[in-house]
Amino acid sequence: MKISLLLTGNELMSGDTVDSNSAYIAQSLKDLSLVPYIKKVVGDDTSLLISSIQELAAVSDVLVINGGLGPTVDDLTALALSNAIDSPLTRNADAYAKLDEWATRRGFVMTESNLKQTELPAACEIIDNPNGSAMGFRCVFNDCLIMCTPGVPSEFKPMVENHILPLIREHGNIEARSTITRLRIFGITESGLQDTVNEIFPDWPAEVELGFRVQLPVIEVKFATVGDEFLELNQQWADKFEAHFSDYVIGRDSVRLSQALNLALQQKGLTVTTAESCTGGQIASGITSEAGSSEVFEAGFVVYSNRMKTKTLGVAEDLLEQHGAVSQESVIAMAEGALLESSADIAISISGIAGPTGGSDEKPVGLVWMAWGRAGAIKARKFFLPMGRIAFQRTATALAMDMVRREVLGLSTDVDYFSELKKKR
Amino acid sequence: MKISLLLTGNELMSGDTVDSNSAYIAQSLKDLSLVPYIKKVVGDDTSLLISSIQELAAVSDVLVINGGLGPTVDDLTALALSNAIDSPLTRNADAYAKLDEWATRRGFVMTESNLKQTELPAACEIIDNPNGSAMGFRCVFNDCLIMCTPGVPSEFKPMVENHILPLIREHGNIEARSTITRLRIFGITESGLQDTVNEIFPDWPAEVELGFRVQLPVIEVKFATVGDEFLELNQQWADKFEAHFSDYVIGRDSVRLSQALNLALQQKGLTVTTAESCTGGQIASGITSEAGSSEVFEAGFVVYSNRMKTKTLGVAEDLLEQHGAVSQESVIAMAEGALLESSADIAISISGIAGPTGGSDEKPVGLVWMAWGRAGAIKARKFFLPMGRIAFQRTATALAMDMVRREVLGLSTDVDYFSELKKKR
Repeated sequence: MKISLLLTGNELMSGDTVDSNSAYIAQSLKDLSLVPYIKKVVGDDTSLLISSIQELAAVSDVLVINGGLGPTVDDLTALALSNAIDSPLTRNADAYAKLDEWATRRGFVMTESNLKQTELPAACEIIDNPNGSAMGFRCVFNDCLIMCTPGVPSEFKPMVENHILPLIREHGNIEARSTITRLRIFGITESGLQDTVNEIFPDWPAEVELGFRVQLPVIEVKFATVGDEFLELNQQWADKFEAHFSDYVIGRDSVRLSQALNLALQQKGLTVTTAESCTGGQIASGITSEAGSSEVFEAGFVVYSNRMKTKTLGVAEDLLEQHGAVSQESVIAMAEGALLESSADIAISISGIAGPTGGSDEKPVGLVWMAWGRAGAIKARKFFLPMGRIAFQRTATALAMDMVRREVLGLSTDVDYFSELKKKR
Repeated sequence: MKISLLLTGNELMSGDTVDSNSAYIAQSLKDLSLVPYIKKVVGDDTSLLISSIQELAAVSDVLVINGGLGPTVDDLTALALSNAIDSPLTRNADAYAKLDEWATRRGFVMTESNLKQTELPAACEIIDNPNGSAMGFRCVFNDCLIMCTPGVPSEFKPMVENHILPLIREHGNIEARSTITRLRIFGITESGLQDTVNEIFPDWPAEVELGFRVQLPVIEVKFATVGDEFLELNQQWADKFEAHFSDYVIGRDSVRLSQALNLALQQKGLTVTTAESCTGGQIASGITSEAGSSEVFEAGFVVYSNRMKTKTLGVAEDLLEQHGAVSQESVIAMAEGALLESSADIAISISGIAGPTGGSDEKPVGLVWMAWGRAGAIKARKFFLPMGRIAFQRTATALAMDMVRREVLGLSTDVDYFSELKKKR
């Protein structure tokens, strides 16, 4: 069943108004296992509206038109539909009665502009809008159910639930149900995932539609099947996928990396502390962006200068002089100092060169060292992230959170990330 | 000149991803006094993409296609364009060279999936994308300039400014006639700005088009005039506007709040330290997200628990017991402790109830105290931000940065923000 959307309004074209209606109806259509087919947006232009209605009605089973129902001169939907389906505008008695009642209830006097809203194509029936003066209206044209709906979200949204979805269901005799499974992956690129699937699962079944969505720093993998008979197949292949990518899978549904980390810490009853230089507090703020983080986090230290690495975390001055702040020795000492100061169970420390300046041949912009672990068992690792400052900080933060997640869950921290993986495979 | 947009991606149709790209390009087109003509959105469906390209190219002077450039099987734009304009897919040497360079810089090995991204319609030239692996590409078909662009906003947006607008200008013989002035405002809502303009400037000239773009936490105000003869008028009214909103203006062009703060500190030769509870490191990471922040920032403290407020910052236990962590007394003691520990010139401290739990009748979720200033001259102020945890943290961080900006620049910190302003006016 093909459902198309036609949105109208100059304010949508100019970018001054962000359209939330189409995402809303798309989410609602999921309940019927439907996804919109075409969405088209045009300004207040009668001839373009007419041709768009005809074009979309010709290729769709349902056409939802949104906007242009108001009382002003730039509200053209009724006029355009009248032309598109060749059905003259006439006073609609139901629309008039509803509007009269609406105005009376509010103590309004109906104006000429309001009366315009009761002039609808003769072929149309109204769709009730208890929340505004603009009635919706609908007709069937060449087997396409056309529904005109108000652009105001507070009027549109209840109309979707109360009328649009039931009308679609009725028009389309709907039954088939889809199953969606979602996994969230950290540490493999979109193309790396695709290549691996091609290589490892050459027999991937066509019934299980695989989709990737980049939601930095993670990638969401979606497994979609249509029809109850494929429910088991969906589970089976999602499980196979999860088994293969094992600890790169941070969770299901919409889990965030910070959320997965907090959850792991909660499950093990552990607390974490942070000692950050180049990420400047992003790891701490990632952890504390999650509700309930006070269970797992008491304190973090942003030690940007060498002086403060020594003063707050007790990193020896001669260590910094000998090895530099961006070094294995320095991050290990930072982690040890943070554990001592905070009494947390686990520390994560990080020091790198975010750029754009400050690099050298030996230690270029993009180099980052991190250390993590419990007192007396600190591990360290370096990464090279040659990207802009913002991307560097975001990626370093994500890698640090994943290191702690792995450490806490007893998973290997000696894993390949992103490019490294591709190089070795 | 008719400019149409074709957006592609199942994630756009399903409502899982909100499209911000089309509003962005629409705003940018205003600089050329242009408004998009048709916007069409379709899923990953080759035949629908082909017919949509042909349909839109036939009625438009420019067609911008967004999305579907990635390395996976559901990225269909090159294939669809190849069919639509009857130009076979071939290895594009420029695309290959750019991708090779991109991969080498990051230490990636190019995979089969990546190589797919270098197979473009023979008629196309590339459009450089320094921020990702997906090159843009363009051709002219039946007098319509077709440009294919990446869906990732951080890649799309710079491409619009650097390539798409110049290419449109060139294709349409558009003289750069318009003057754009941009101010960035913090602390007043969009409707507050609009209401104030209506009230204070009833004689606002029609030639100076005023536009607002919300770029949380700031609002960009744009003054656009078309024609050199209005250049002076543009300056004049932008200056009037700036004079009226005075210290709510954080700067011109694309300045960020964190950037304005760092700049103010640099200008005055001052350093800042942070003592954060409810914002968990966001203020520190905001400051250090700016290049050169080591000049103004040495250290920050995330003291999430009461114990650590005492241990690291020396906040007296009985003070916390008597007044609670979310109190004027507590944030003042935190700021004093941070100054002492870091030897910075100015401190900002913050403690609040981010929620969703932890509130009480006396101290509800959304209450936040902050203190700022130099040793012996600490001021404090409370805000009530009854919103979700994420918005609470983001807003509190922005308010804190603005307080320090004002303090450093010698501006009043006793100003109205957001709703307070509206209530009083």
